[in-house]
Amino acid sequence: MMTSAEAATSEDALDRIKSVVGPKGIVSDPEQLGRYIEDWHGLYAGAARLVVLPASTAEVAEVVRICSAARIPVFPQGGHTGLCGGATPSANGIVLGLARMNRILSVDPANFTITAQAGCILAEVQRAAQAADRFFPLSLGAEGTCQIGGNLSTNAGGTAVLRYGSTRDLTLGLEVVLPDGSVIEGLRSVRKDNTGYDLKHLFIGGEGTLGIITAATLKLFPRPRETETAFLGLSRLDDVMTLFARSRAASGDQLTGFELISRYGVQMALDYAPGVRDPLDAHHPWYVLLEMTSSQTGTGLRTAMEQILEEAMASGEVQDGVIASSDAQRRELWRVREGLIMGIRHQGAASKHDVSVPVDQVARFITEADAAVVRSYPGSRTLSFGHVGDGNIHYNAFGVPEADIPACHDMVNDIVLGLGGSISAEHGIGISKRHDLTRYKSPLELDVMRRIKAALDPAQIMNPGKVL
Amino acid sequence: MMTSAEAATSEDALDRIKSVVGPKGIVSDPEQLGRYIEDWHGLYAGAARLVVLPASTAEVAEVVRICSAARIPVFPQGGHTGLCGGATPSANGIVLGLARMNRILSVDPANFTITAQAGCILAEVQRAAQAADRFFPLSLGAEGTCQIGGNLSTNAGGTAVLRYGSTRDLTLGLEVVLPDGSVIEGLRSVRKDNTGYDLKHLFIGGEGTLGIITAATLKLFPRPRETETAFLGLSRLDDVMTLFARSRAASGDQLTGFELISRYGVQMALDYAPGVRDPLDAHHPWYVLLEMTSSQTGTGLRTAMEQILEEAMASGEVQDGVIASSDAQRRELWRVREGLIMGIRHQGAASKHDVSVPVDQVARFITEADAAVVRSYPGSRTLSFGHVGDGNIHYNAFGVPEADIPACHDMVNDIVLGLGGSISAEHGIGISKRHDLTRYKSPLELDVMRRIKAALDPAQIMNPGKVL
Repeated sequence: MMTSAEAATSEDALDRIKSVVGPKGIVSDPEQLGRYIEDWHGLYAGAARLVVLPASTAEVAEVVRICSAARIPVFPQGGHTGLCGGATPSANGIVLGLARMNRILSVDPANFTITAQAGCILAEVQRAAQAADRFFPLSLGAEGTCQIGGNLSTNAGGTAVLRYGSTRDLTLGLEVVLPDGSVIEGLRSVRKDNTGYDLKHLFIGGEGTLGIITAATLKLFPRPRETETAFLGLSRLDDVMTLFARSRAASGDQLTGFELISRYGVQMALDYAPGVRDPLDAHHPWYVLLEMTSSQTGTGLRTAMEQILEEAMASGEVQDGVIASSDAQRRELWRVREGLIMGIRHQGAASKHDVSVPVDQVARFITEADAAVVRSYPGSRTLSFGHVGDGNIHYNAFGVPEADIPACHDMVNDIVLGLGGSISAEHGIGISKRHDLTRYKSPLELDVMRRIKAALDPAQIMNPGKVL
Repeated sequence: MMTSAEAATSEDALDRIKSVVGPKGIVSDPEQLGRYIEDWHGLYAGAARLVVLPASTAEVAEVVRICSAARIPVFPQGGHTGLCGGATPSANGIVLGLARMNRILSVDPANFTITAQAGCILAEVQRAAQAADRFFPLSLGAEGTCQIGGNLSTNAGGTAVLRYGSTRDLTLGLEVVLPDGSVIEGLRSVRKDNTGYDLKHLFIGGEGTLGIITAATLKLFPRPRETETAFLGLSRLDDVMTLFARSRAASGDQLTGFELISRYGVQMALDYAPGVRDPLDAHHPWYVLLEMTSSQTGTGLRTAMEQILEEAMASGEVQDGVIASSDAQRRELWRVREGLIMGIRHQGAASKHDVSVPVDQVARFITEADAAVVRSYPGSRTLSFGHVGDGNIHYNAFGVPEADIPACHDMVNDIVLGLGGSISAEHGIGISKRHDLTRYKSPLELDVMRRIKAALDPAQIMNPGKVL
């Protein structure tokens, strides 16, 4: 409980915050407030004393300074598309949204870099790169809504990690407002910098608990000049891994996408996503969406793709397949992968997992988890899809009795751990996986994390209740 | 000064350390001791109370625990090839060398990973990958002597960063002994892991000040199947940058090496490295060693290389050039680049720099630095070479009066800073650049580093006097 003197100080602080951001920087419309308070799939209903949208790094810093002095918790928010409740506020704090800080600060094609404010929508960063004949490879389902600051804070993955790495790997420099309101001006665009501890890697994936990322300098790449996309039907899960090894060996670095989808996933896309057609005539237990790209033309990409398919079909790994013959057809194939997400929302409560295992353990993980889930919960049904090349599987068990979901959840995670895997591959920890973190991370690693949190945020005002 | 009671405790601790590592783990031969005490180019003469070589992580942990309790400084050492004095001990501490922990723990070709103890020589890691038909890309001059643990602790760069990144980018997991002797068992081999703060990035590039890396799980890649190497003569520095842009645009990700050498550098290799021949008939002010590799065969790499050269010569960027027609000839071309290092040692005292700037600022940096040095110190002579694709230039000013070297050093670094660059691109800070760090890093960043150091090493026993 606050004393009345503290409450008065705190009210005064909120007034000062309002005057820092001005009327345009305050969200007060009750209709609009909801989307800053609740997370987007409605699992976490938060609350907040104030929702502010600063227009500059200086405003962010000033707001944080006031909050630091008054011990008011700060909940940073990007596009609010996270899946773990990492941006959900609590009643004693303020929401600090980055949406108004949405300028591309510079694009430097000769240096292959782009500098963007944290509130830039991911798709805008992609477009700005493309306009300069360059390529920003981060790509994921929410790219039309999520903000690059959120991508950085959660170290977002997506469909191009196999070739280009996660958001962490794409980052050269950061500007960060620390929990005391001081500003690290680290928008460096050099490729190599060995001058002491690499602080940016604490804030990337830190989920806003160590500071607020306000801008970033990111790597660009040569634009893909040729793309070949195939949709393949397979009868056995083990063959998926053989096909992956074959594809990577034959195409080397040109293999940029290798997405696994089970039949159930394809069926969901057909049932729930408008306009999706089954790319293949017959049904197959497993599908692979395989994509190869080249930044050059005339490297025989089509021939290489055809040869991989020919050999894979001759050896019996692949039963049927289609190679996109146009950009329109390529987009149709990807619609299957994207469309299944719409189906998931209609399946009700589930044990949901975003896990990774060593790449060669993917088939084993799915096989063991499926067997355990179906044995433990008769009538349940599992769905696996994801980025096989990264060992990253989105695993869902539907039809598990709601009371049994926590036990099912732990059971699947134990299998992941037994295979040397991670219980959060790309979605982060937020609120939803804090329990998992204490269960699966070593006490020593958690202790070191807490020491770092205490060193950077001694007052514990920055996104409290998340991660740790 | 120690009290006599402290001294007795401390002596007792040294005895216990000796019994932990056993007779094989103690270096006592005075002939041998020297190389653990002095750095290899003889700039920093250290001292130590004891030099131990533990045989296991458990022994490392036990030694560190004893040192922590007795407040004895610990100086971790790898292959001792660092250039900044980062491994030089001081008289009150012990040297903890990793040389006996030199086992490859596992190679996993299906998962494209290798796990090695910290004391493995870099070349052994490369060979173990090759034996499994895989490729470990880290490559640098000292690879026959340096240890992977040292590469990790300094985030080593080398000649393949353009395509594969620095050591940091090649690392999936680490085992680390913390300054209190506890062990982070983080040898994970998953590609994606978003479970809290990514602690490994503190130890990578931490130069042994936050803990001792005892083993690492590293990324492997498909083996290059084709390599094309060219040695080109250019008349203008600006044309080097145009050639880089042209090569990267035309070859995309197949461009794996782009090394700049000035005529002076080629001359040094000719004068001091045995068996080096000038690859070109006439002299040119600038040279580029250009390498393209492909993990596939039949992609027309040779044709692409020839086309780049043809166009670059037609446009006047390149005056003359040779493409290696055999592996033997390729090695000869690289001998020029490697051989110039031998020449540098014969030039006496110099203002030496390992800097990086945004890639498109490389020519400007060299031009401005050369003009400033020659204007300030008539009779001086500068040498530039390095990894243009990373914006990383090794810059040397010879013939500057010895008393003026510090001023010359600051003058060149100021130019780097003015261009948004870094004063240590790949060699780290160690002892030699601590002064530079306080001059060029923001006080806030230094403060955050110190807070992290205090959080992980409150007794300040781990490699004291380095970095901070």
